Amino acid sequence: MNRFSLNQATTKRWPLDELVAGCVSAGVPAVGLWREEVAAYGLDKAATLVREAGLQVSSLCRGGFFHEEDWYDNNRRAIEEAATLGTDTLVLVSGGLPGKSRDIDGARRHISEAIGALVPDARAAGVRLAIEPLHPMFCSDRCVVATLGQALEIAAPHPADAVGVCLDTYHLWWDDQVWRHIDEAGRQGRIAAFQLADWITPLPAGVLLGRGLPGTGCVDLRRFATAVRAAGYEGYVEVEVFHEDVWSRPGPEVLAEAYAGYRAFAA
Amino acid sequence: MNRFSLNQATTKRWPLDELVAGCVSAGVPAVGLWREEVAAYGLDKAATLVREAGLQVSSLCRGGFFHEEDWYDNNRRAIEEAATLGTDTLVLVSGGLPGKSRDIDGARRHISEAIGALVPDARAAGVRLAIEPLHPMFCSDRCVVATLGQALEIAAPHPADAVGVCLDTYHLWWDDQVWRHIDEAGRQGRIAAFQLADWITPLPAGVLLGRGLPGTGCVDLRRFATAVRAAGYEGYVEVEVFHEDVWSRPGPEVLAEAYAGYRAFAA
Repeated sequence: MNRFSLNQATTKRWPLDELVAGCVSAGVPAVGLWREEVAAYGLDKAATLVREAGLQVSSLCRGGFFHEEDWYDNNRRAIEEAATLGTDTLVLVSGGLPGKSRDIDGARRHISEAIGALVPDARAAGVRLAIEPLHPMFCSDRCVVATLGQALEIAAPHPADAVGVCLDTYHLWWDDQVWRHIDEAGRQGRIAAFQLADWITPLPAGVLLGRGLPGTGCVDLRRFATAVRAAGYEGYVEVEVFHEDVWSRPGPEVLAEAYAGYRAFAA
Repeated sequence: MNRFSLNQATTKRWPLDELVAGCVSAGVPAVGLWREEVAAYGLDKAATLVREAGLQVSSLCRGGFFHEEDWYDNNRRAIEEAATLGTDTLVLVSGGLPGKSRDIDGARRHISEAIGALVPDARAAGVRLAIEPLHPMFCSDRCVVATLGQALEIAAPHPADAVGVCLDTYHLWWDDQVWRHIDEAGRQGRIAAFQLADWITPLPAGVLLGRGLPGTGCVDLRRFATAVRAAGYEGYVEVEVFHEDVWSRPGPEVLAEAYAGYRAFAA
């Protein structure tokens, strides 16, 4: 069974209509979309495009950024956009420390409260909030949720069909506790998304665009795919890479390499 | 009581004799030294210089790098150098994944074995091995020991006066488990060194030279200093920063700012 999904960020400069055509032509069943790119194309137009192509939308990236002032309205919009696109999964990058704050516990409490406030909207829209722990190098400016253990703690007060977790190998591979947390996430039925990317060095300035295509780095991707499957996850496996060198290559070529990575490590 | 120590890496381009004179003149009681700089100056000459100036050597950086072929001989030399310099603390940066390996568990096992092999040499020389967990962004290429919890596990089989841990705020601040691990490290008598640095963004390419002077970033340094003190640690507090902007400034000015950071957050 083909559970591969191309996350749009991997081929950031591939226009959406060409990307959709390329996925259909390659036999790819699903795509992961990003709000900015969808908005630039037009939300309803994008929804029609993927639906008529017969593609599933495995997830929408991203809600979250709860350190920003307009987090509530912005996340409500994100939930609506996910519903319009026909995906049941909104990935949350929860945000960093606000302003000059040094209060990481406070930031984490705020995220818990913000997610609690959004649950009714998400349930009403049939969309699950997928808390994504980000690598600790993003802790100050993008996401104070740095481990799967923390993500599960934040999810715990809510039903599993309302709040899940997004597992991304790039963010989690260094953590020796991740295997028991994957098992736990599976037992709770909270694995909402699974993303593959490899860790390569040296990291670029700003570190955001340092992800590698599966197979180019040092992450034991097969171990992750096996653990996630053993935990009961049967959803799509997104390949999600941000890297200037990958973005500068032709979309179909990157799609083929991403798909090959999925087949090698996670099929 | 003045427990401040200037780690030499903070003022990397300040010649050692000037650094020592600057510390004496500022009333600084201790310095943390680096092997490369000591070797360039001359080991015996450096030992005489600091001893005659009345400075303590709070630690020597660094042993470790156990993924390299010559780790055993190299670390035995590092132990001897620490003893010659009159410090009882050799900081270990344990090394990353060897070659093209994806076997992080194997790398961690190798580090445990390597440290076990060095314990007799360290004890004979009166030097304690201080395992330093590094931030997870260094996991692949510099140190697969990414949390204080892991460092304590590796130290566990050995007496606390032979194998301790080095706590560095820059590497540990993101970890919500660090507080219980600091308590545990204190109960075991394993806190061998404590280093202050702040987290600032954006990170530079390669990420090694991204550390900030205390007070310039988002780490709750006072909470760390309080926790480490409450755990029974009474040794020196090193300020250790690597940053091109800091290195390009005059040594005495950086020393003054580092010392002020110590007084503000950890005195």
